[in-house]
Amino acid sequence: MSREAARRDALRALAAQQDLDAVLVTNLLNVRYLTGFTGSNGALLVRTDGPDLFGTDGRYTTQASTQVPDVELVVDRATVPALARAAAGAGRLGFESHDLTVDGLEQLRRVLDDAAAGGRVPELASVRRAVEAQRAIKDDDEIESLRRACAVADQALAELAAEGALRPGRTELEVGRELDARMLALGAEAPSFETIVATGANSAIPHHRPDRTELREGDFLKLDFGATVDGYHSDMTRTLVLGHVADWQREVYALVAESQAAGRAALSVGADVVAVDSAARDVIVAAGHGEHFTHGLGHGVGLEIHEAPGIGQLGAGTLAAGMAVTVEPGVYLPGHGGVRIEDTLIVTDGAPELLTLTSKELLVL
Amino acid sequence: MSREAARRDALRALAAQQDLDAVLVTNLLNVRYLTGFTGSNGALLVRTDGPDLFGTDGRYTTQASTQVPDVELVVDRATVPALARAAAGAGRLGFESHDLTVDGLEQLRRVLDDAAAGGRVPELASVRRAVEAQRAIKDDDEIESLRRACAVADQALAELAAEGALRPGRTELEVGRELDARMLALGAEAPSFETIVATGANSAIPHHRPDRTELREGDFLKLDFGATVDGYHSDMTRTLVLGHVADWQREVYALVAESQAAGRAALSVGADVVAVDSAARDVIVAAGHGEHFTHGLGHGVGLEIHEAPGIGQLGAGTLAAGMAVTVEPGVYLPGHGGVRIEDTLIVTDGAPELLTLTSKELLVL
Repeated sequence: MSREAARRDALRALAAQQDLDAVLVTNLLNVRYLTGFTGSNGALLVRTDGPDLFGTDGRYTTQASTQVPDVELVVDRATVPALARAAAGAGRLGFESHDLTVDGLEQLRRVLDDAAAGGRVPELASVRRAVEAQRAIKDDDEIESLRRACAVADQALAELAAEGALRPGRTELEVGRELDARMLALGAEAPSFETIVATGANSAIPHHRPDRTELREGDFLKLDFGATVDGYHSDMTRTLVLGHVADWQREVYALVAESQAAGRAALSVGADVVAVDSAARDVIVAAGHGEHFTHGLGHGVGLEIHEAPGIGQLGAGTLAAGMAVTVEPGVYLPGHGGVRIEDTLIVTDGAPELLTLTSKELLVL
Repeated sequence: MSREAARRDALRALAAQQDLDAVLVTNLLNVRYLTGFTGSNGALLVRTDGPDLFGTDGRYTTQASTQVPDVELVVDRATVPALARAAAGAGRLGFESHDLTVDGLEQLRRVLDDAAAGGRVPELASVRRAVEAQRAIKDDDEIESLRRACAVADQALAELAAEGALRPGRTELEVGRELDARMLALGAEAPSFETIVATGANSAIPHHRPDRTELREGDFLKLDFGATVDGYHSDMTRTLVLGHVADWQREVYALVAESQAAGRAALSVGADVVAVDSAARDVIVAAGHGEHFTHGLGHGVGLEIHEAPGIGQLGAGTLAAGMAVTVEPGVYLPGHGGVRIEDTLIVTDGAPELLTLTSKELLVL
C-alpha cells in the first residue's frame, strides 16, 4: 500500500468515527498529501464505503494517471461539482470549512440539491483541520525530504560565504537573489518563501523585505531563507556581522543564542507548546529584552512554510514525535539592529534532530 | 493621489451604487492592488463614508507604514475580526464571497453579532469579483512592470540558447532550474509558475513537469515559463527543435504559428473572448487537428498568472483597452510531440502591444 493510501485510510477511519459517509477534500495541499498529486487543480472524495475518487481537469489527465494510479479518476473542469454529484447518495458529507469559500459551499449545496432531485440531500459537516492534524506528524520519507531541503539551504549559504558574496557594498536585493539562485542550482524547486536579507538598522525589522540598502562594515546581516524539495519547506535564520563586532552586538547575539538553545532543549514529546515558547522567552525576558522579542517562538513546517503546530504564548497542544518545527527567537532593537537565530528540527522520543546544520557561532565575515 | 487611492475610490463608488456602507476586502492580492501592501497577512475596509482601514499583524507594522502611508492602520493578529468590529455600525457590509472561507464568514458573523450587542447587525452582501474586474484593466505602471517581467524572460532564454545550455544530453530538470536561476539573476522576484520544460514525447503533454528525461537530437523542446517583477507575471511559451527538423515537426509548427498569429490579430477592443478563441482554433480545426488543441486560447495575466479575462469557448465578455492577455494555441500529438506558442500582449485601441519579444520563427539549435 502506498503511503498516500495509508493516509486516506486514516482519514476514512476518522470519518467513520464522525458518522460521515464521505469527506470532500478541497485544500490542494491536503489533496497532494492524500494522493501525491502536484498539479494546480484537484479535489478528493474519500468514502467510508469506498472507492475513493480523485478529480482534476483535462490538463492533468496524464499526470494524474502517473501520480495517482490507485484512485479512480474523474476528469472535469469543475472538480468539486463533479465529486459532489458522486457523493449525492451520502447521508452525511464532510467538507473542509477552513478551505471551502462561501461561493464554493453555495455551489456544493446547489449540486447536491440538483442531484437529489427532491429526494434526501446529504447533511454537510465540517471535518475542520483533520488532514492538517495528520500532516503535523511526518513519516520517514517526509523527514528525508525536509533533511534535503535544509541541506540545500545550508550549502547555498556556505557557498556564498566562501565566495565572498556577503561583503560590504553589495545590496540586500543582490544577496537575496544570489541565495535564491544558488538554492535552485542546488536542486531546490523554489525558495520556501520570499528570502529575507536585512542589514544594519533593517535587521531590527523582523520581516524586512530586501531593498537596495548596501551591506556595510560593522553591521548585522540577518538572512532568513529556505528551500523547497519534494514540496517540503526548510526554514533557517542566521545573523552574521561584517567586519568588526561591537560589544552590544556580541551581547545581543549571545542572548539570542542562549534563548534559542533553551528553546531547542525544550522540544520533547508531550511538551506543551506554550511551555516551549516560555523556555526560550524567559531567557530574553530575564535579560530585560522581553519587549524586543515580538513574535512566537516557532511553527511547524512541511508542505506549507507555516503549519501546525504553532509554538507561542497563544498556541495550544503538545508536541509529538515526528513533528517538524522551527525554533526562532529574536531580539530587535529598533533603529539599531536585530538578531534572530532559527533552526528546523524534528521532535523525537529522545533529543530533537537538528536539520539545519549551519553553525550558530557568531560568524564574522 | 496615489494610484492605490484612486483604485479605492473606484471601489467606493461601486459600493455606493450597491447601497453598501463598506466593503471588507480579504483577498490578499486585491488588498495589495488597493493599498500597495506586499506582506502575507492583510485586509482592507473601504468605507463609502471613509476613512478606510488597513489591518495587518505586528510583523508588518514598519512595512505597512512605508507601503500604505495613506490608510489608517490597525495592527492586530486577527485582521478580519479587527476590521469587522470597525464596520459593526454599517447597515450593509460587502465581502468577497469567492475568497472568504466558510469558517471566515462564521467568524465575521460572530464578531458583528457581538459588536451589535443586541442592536442592529449589518446585512452582509457579496461584492463578487469586483476588485478582480478592476484589476483586469492595467494602468501604465502595471504595463511597464509586465514589460519588464517579459523582458527578463526573453533575456534569460536568449542567454541560455547563446551559451549552448539547450543541448542534447541535458535533462529537462537541469534546463528548468537554469532558466529559473537566470531569471532571478536578471532581477525577477520569482518564476511566474513552475517552469515547464518538455522534450520529445513529453512535449505532447500540455502541462508536463520537468523530469530527468534527456534532451535528444531531433526532438521538440517546449519551454513555458515567465518571470515576476513588481508582483506582475509574464508568460511565454516557445517550442524549439534540437538538430534536424522532421517534416511533420515543421508542419505542426507552421500550423500552430498560423493559429497563434490569427489569435493575436483578433485581439481588439470590444472583441468577444469566444470569437478570439475561435479565430485561432478555426485554423487548427480546418487542418484536422481540432481534437489535439485541448485547452483554451489564453487568459489574463497580472498580479496572478491566471486572472480575468479567460479567452476560450467557455469564456464570456469582451476585451477592453489595457487588458493583459496571453495567446497560446497548441497542437499535441500523444506519444510523438507537441507545439505551443504563447505570447503576452496588451489590448489597445490599435494593434495589440507584444510584450514577449523572443522570435517565433522555428528555432533549430
